[in-house]
Formats: sequence, structure tokens, C-alpha cells
Amino acid sequence: MASLKINSARLNETLQSTCTQWGALSTSTGMCRLTLSQEDKNVRDWLVNQCKEIGCEIKVDQMGNIFAIRPGTATDKLPIGLGSHLDTQPAGGRYDGILGVQAALEVLRTLHENDVKTHRPIALIDWTNEEGARFPGAMMSSGVWSTKSSAPLEACWGLRDTEGVTMQDALEEIGYLGTTPCDYRENGLECHFELHIEQGPLLEREGKSVGVVTAVQGMKWFAVRVTGVEGHSGTTPMDNRSDALVTASRLISAVRDAASRTGLGVATVGVIKSDTSSQATIPAGVEFIIDVRCSTDDMVDALATEIFKSFDAVVAEEENATSYDVTRTWGLPESKFHENCINAVRRAALGEVAESQIMDMKSRAGHDSAWTSRVVPTSMIFVPSKDGVSHNPNEYTSPEHCALGAQVLLQAVLRYDDCAKTGAF
Amino acid sequence: MASLKINSARLNETLQSTCTQWGALSTSTGMCRLTLSQEDKNVRDWLVNQCKEIGCEIKVDQMGNIFAIRPGTATDKLPIGLGSHLDTQPAGGRYDGILGVQAALEVLRTLHENDVKTHRPIALIDWTNEEGARFPGAMMSSGVWSTKSSAPLEACWGLRDTEGVTMQDALEEIGYLGTTPCDYRENGLECHFELHIEQGPLLEREGKSVGVVTAVQGMKWFAVRVTGVEGHSGTTPMDNRSDALVTASRLISAVRDAASRTGLGVATVGVIKSDTSSQATIPAGVEFIIDVRCSTDDMVDALATEIFKSFDAVVAEEENATSYDVTRTWGLPESKFHENCINAVRRAALGEVAESQIMDMKSRAGHDSAWTSRVVPTSMIFVPSKDGVSHNPNEYTSPEHCALGAQVLLQAVLRYDDCAKTGAF
Repeated sequence: MASLKINSARLNETLQSTCTQWGALSTSTGMCRLTLSQEDKNVRDWLVNQCKEIGCEIKVDQMGNIFAIRPGTATDKLPIGLGSHLDTQPAGGRYDGILGVQAALEVLRTLHENDVKTHRPIALIDWTNEEGARFPGAMMSSGVWSTKSSAPLEACWGLRDTEGVTMQDALEEIGYLGTTPCDYRENGLECHFELHIEQGPLLEREGKSVGVVTAVQGMKWFAVRVTGVEGHSGTTPMDNRSDALVTASRLISAVRDAASRTGLGVATVGVIKSDTSSQATIPAGVEFIIDVRCSTDDMVDALATEIFKSFDAVVAEEENATSYDVTRTWGLPESKFHENCINAVRRAALGEVAESQIMDMKSRAGHDSAWTSRVVPTSMIFVPSKDGVSHNPNEYTSPEHCALGAQVLLQAVLRYDDCAKTGAF
Repeated sequence: MASLKINSARLNETLQSTCTQWGALSTSTGMCRLTLSQEDKNVRDWLVNQCKEIGCEIKVDQMGNIFAIRPGTATDKLPIGLGSHLDTQPAGGRYDGILGVQAALEVLRTLHENDVKTHRPIALIDWTNEEGARFPGAMMSSGVWSTKSSAPLEACWGLRDTEGVTMQDALEEIGYLGTTPCDYRENGLECHFELHIEQGPLLEREGKSVGVVTAVQGMKWFAVRVTGVEGHSGTTPMDNRSDALVTASRLISAVRDAASRTGLGVATVGVIKSDTSSQATIPAGVEFIIDVRCSTDDMVDALATEIFKSFDAVVAEEENATSYDVTRTWGLPESKFHENCINAVRRAALGEVAESQIMDMKSRAGHDSAWTSRVVPTSMIFVPSKDGVSHNPNEYTSPEHCALGAQVLLQAVLRYDDCAKTGAF
């Protein structure tokens, strides 16, 4: 079993060709495969066919999550899950999420062509809307499945994209509004493994090739609305203005400064929207979203407190009253992964590369595994991202690292299955 | 002649009812009548019919400017123009522009029903796209007509709205792509008068009811694009970021601070747009437009210089390289009005109210008259704006002030016509 090898060429060819066909940007190697778009439907249809061809049973749940299950010898056991996502940012890359699903398919193909019989079933999972780029709220459908997210099924169904389409309609439109309950208690897993690119610079900087991920940092999003008074840009004296964009600008600067000053973690304003579309009007309403991430939940709260304290100082200094409101829109608590899964990954990695090539690390990005870890044993495998770049067309992980990650995933699954059979982890 | 009176009730009823029918916002007394929209077509059609009914000849030029000309006794003279605009901001009021056109119609109606024969023809003018809210570039079509604007006919025709519709197609679509040359040398005026609301607080603050406008302050618009490096909001360390939105925020603060500090004039950022629509992505590209206005061109240049000097300081202080580019998109030089027109307005006002009710002033907003003043004698009449509010649904000018403005307009025209006949201004 330890000698079983994935097919590196097939993995990389499949990953590149499916990206080229469904969602490639025309001017770069980047991707735009928004969740539940036509491109997403096409790659889902392809995935389902590939899995059926190698004998998997397909379940689609109420959030469009696809479970492709290869049977094990045991008929009374839950499957070992290998999950990630096929959707991307509007201008993302070919590896974030996609590698994890394609590697899971390569694991299933390898098991199939070598006629390997695992004790437990093995489930490939494509989680819907991990990116939160079309319907707001990242890692949405693994969150619903875990029942631990603050956004339950009906709330997610009702979310609208910028065109006004609801998530439920979008699922129905592409034929992925399934009937399997999106709930781990009714459609469960034994555990969850996820191969992912690091999306940061640490592995590359340290000269390592495999990251054994032990946790995911905590994160919270806050929606801020600044309110001022509209007015004519020519006739309103400077000292008579309540300019919502000027105040918002000072607040956005304060977010950056609070994160840099305290060193508690990272804080980002990624989206800004002004009510005004006229060059000659003083903006009266501006909205933006703050993304705060730290290695512990306490640090997230401390950084958020620091940010809002500096907001109060900014608003107090403005000559005329502008005001701001904050809504906590979304959060993912710090996630600690399970020892059994971490050990399976570490031992699998040691079987493939020297110990000096491996490091333990925390994930600084959110992943579906953060939600699965709330309800089933979970861990992740990281492989290096060139220059730490992600959410960008220049995202890149070498074919060798993609293959190494898939090989570690295969071996981690086999080791976990073996240990779980006897209970001797 | 000095006893000739406009019909105050008719003016105000017409103004309100045409607003209610074509472009009224449903939740306020505000207006959304974007240029060349269906609402604009409807009010234009109505205006053309009203003018025809009282014996005017209609010309529509290549930019859709409507000239409704009431003949004079002289057949070899150019008309005295009374112009303004019927388009509004996306959430504007019922008086900005609209009052000037409705007052001009009321002047024509008054002349008609009193069977007054003027020496020169009188032309009502509805200038297209004064607001620049749908197709960028305010006072666009009077600018083309004057031939002094940096945006000539073909460039304006090619502009696109946010839906991608060109201005030429929009003109054709509503039936207002006329054949009269949009050029004062081929479709000329003797002079141009414009009644407008002040859009600022000065008349109200001073307790005056008529402003004799002697000039329009200079203005320039600059488009700024800030470039950073896209990245993942969770995995990119704070000290490794080139965040275009953080830099843009510091620049927008600097615009406000430079204007407040120098006291040279006003500077506003009314529009901001980020390339990024993802909460989890560090923005790599942000665009905004700066609107700078001062009472002289030298002061405009001095304030712009001060702003860009502070930009360089902001960018130099950023830890990682972000950069910015500036494009001068539009400008309107300081406009000095013509003594003959100013005198006609002042004398007309003195005939209606006490001298203590009248003040000379500069316009701080741009108007079509700024362009006409480049090529024909021009002046304006201001009436008070409640609380100085404009470009806002709360814009308000009392019926009494609307009527007073229209009455001054009528008498200014009659006085000018009289003086022009003999050359004794």
C-alpha cells in the first residue's frame, strides 16, 4: 500500500485542461469560475461523470455540495472525506480549491485502477461557494453542513448575487439543488482531509515542500456604513461638509494602522461602495467590509476592539457629524485540527520526502476544513505557493508540488483507513 | 413693458406637474431624470409641443440641444437666448436647471399672450447633459456648441454610459439626434441669459432674494488610478502589502486636508471604484475623480499642485510600492460674464425688488452659461436655495423666489432687446 502512487502526469493534465475549458481568463493563466455559474455547472457535470465512470455513487445535497462515494468493504461505516472546492474568485488562479478536488479525483482513480479495497468508503467532496465571491459568505456550504455556521440553509438560499439572483434559484438553474440533507448528522463523514495550496509565503521562504496543517486562524467580517450629508461639490464650503467618503477613507487608513501597530493579526478592507455616482456630489453614504484574522479568537476580538476604538477617534475629530454603523456579518472561530488526522498526514508526508522538507503550520486562510473540523476529525495538507500569491491570476504551484500533495493525500487516507479499522491511531 | 408680469401660478404649477410626471422619485420630492432617458424624452416632447403651440420654430442640433425660437420684428438678427437644462442628477431636485427652462417657457408664454413684439427673436434653449451624470462631462453640449470645450462633437457622441450605450445612440433612440450644427458659428445667439438656483447658502445667509451673477469659478477634474498588488487578505502579512485601497484612502484624506488647509477653494472626491469585489482580496486597483474649484484659474492650479504634492508625500511614506497616475479629464476655466448682460439683469432686478434684496456674486457651480460666455455676451440670475442644498432630493426654492427669478428674466430680456436695438446699453 505504501508503494501505491498517484499518476502525476494525469493529475496535472486534468487540472490544467479542466481549467482551460471552464473558466479560464483570456489574458492570463487566471480563472473566473464563480460558484453556480455556467462554468461551474460544466466542471461539476464533468466531475460527476468521471466519478460515476470509476464506480462512485453520487449524492448532491441541498446546498449543491457533491459527494462522490467509492464503496469500502465495510457497509456500516461513514466515508473518509477528501474535499475542497472548484469555484474561484472573479480573478483567481487555477490551484486554490481546484487542486484539492482534482487530487481527490486522482486518489479515487488510483484506488480504482489498482483495484484497492479500502475498509471505509472514500468520498470526494466538492463544497459549494467556498469563495463567497458571488454570494457573500466564504466557506458557506461546508458551514451549513456542519450546522455550526451562523448562516443556516434557508438564510443561504435567500442570499442574492449582484444581479439579484437568489442562491436557491442559482442552484436550481444549474441542476444542483439536491435533496440530500445538508447536515453532517444525516449525511455524515468519518473524517475530512483537504489538500490545498498555502496561499502564503512561508513554505517557500523556509524551503519546505509539505505543510502539515494543525489549525486555521480565527476570522471575523464587519460591514461598516458611513453616513454623511449629500451636497454640491462646488457650492458647499469645506467647513460645512459631512463627506462620507472622506470619513470612510480615514477609517480605512485606521484599519491598516491598527493592524500594523498592534501586530495582533491582519485586517483588510477589500470591498468599498459609494452611494454616489456623480463627480459633482459630496458622497452621503459609503459602505465597506473589514476582514480581521488572527491566530486565536481572543486576538481577533482584541484587534477588532482596537480598530473600532480608532474609528471613534476619527469620527470625533471630523468637523461635522458623520456617523458609522457596524454589522458583524460573518465569522469563523479558530479551528484546531484532530490529532489522528494530523498524524496521518505527517506520517504520509514522511513516507514521501525527508523530514527537513516538512513543517507544521497554521492556516491563515479559511477553508472548508475549518467547518468540518467542528464536527468530524479533520486535517489539511499544504503545498507551496509561488511568491505566496493567491486570489490572483499569477497564483502558481509547480506540477511536482501538486503531485506530491496528491500523493501525501492518498497515503494519509490509506493510513487513516488502516488505523481506523483497528482503532490504533 | 416694465409692467409686463409673468404668471407666477402657471410657472410653479407647470414646474411641479412636469416633474411629477417625468422623473419624480417615489419616496421624496427629488428627481431622477438622467439625460436622454425615457423621462427626458417625455419632457422634451412636451416642451417642443408647448413651444410650437405659441408659435415658436423648433431646431434640434447634433447634440440634442433644443432651440425654440419666437420670431422678432427684425428678420436679420440672432435670437436672445434663455437657456438651462431639464436633466438631473440620479437623486437630484426639481429646481437645478429645470427652473431656468420652465422660466424661459413662462417668458415666451407671457410675451405670446400679451402679443409683445420684440425686436430680436427670443430662443428658449434646453441644453443636453448639463449634469454629466449619465455620460461623463458636465455642461457637455453647451461646451460643444461653444467650440471651446476640450470634448468636441465626435468625442461626446462616442462616450458610453454604464450600460455601454453611446451618447449618439442614446440621442437617436429618443429622436433627438438633430441635424442643426452644434456650433455657435452656424446656429448663433445674440446673447445668453440663465436663471438658476444658487445651489449654495450665500443668498439665504445674507437675506437676499436675487443674485446678479458676474462670473463662474474655474474648475478642473482629475482622474486618479492607484495601483497596488492583489493578494489574499488572510495570508499576506501586513508589512508585505501594497494595498491600493489603503493608499487611495490616504490620498482622499489628503485632498480634503489640502483644500481645508490652503483655503484656496473646494476639492471633492465624489466617485470611487475598486477593481476588487471580494472581501478576501487586497485591492490592487482603485480609481477616483477629484473635482477642484476656485474663484480664479490660478487658484485652481495652485490647489491642484498642493494636492499632488501631498500625494507624493503619502506614496513615499507607504511601506511597499503603490503608485498613482493622474489624468486631467475635464476643465472649465473661470468665466467672466458680460457687462451688458450683467447690467440688464441688475436693472431688471431693481425694477422688481429693493436694492437691499440684490447682491452681486460669483457662481461656485458650473453652468451652461460658463460656456456660452466664451462666445456670446452672457449673464445669470440666481435665486435662493433653502439651506444651500442641491444635487439632493431636499433641494428647494420657494414658489415666490421661482416667480421672482422668472420675472427678472423677462425684464432682463426686454431691457437687453431694447438696448441692443439702439446700441445704447
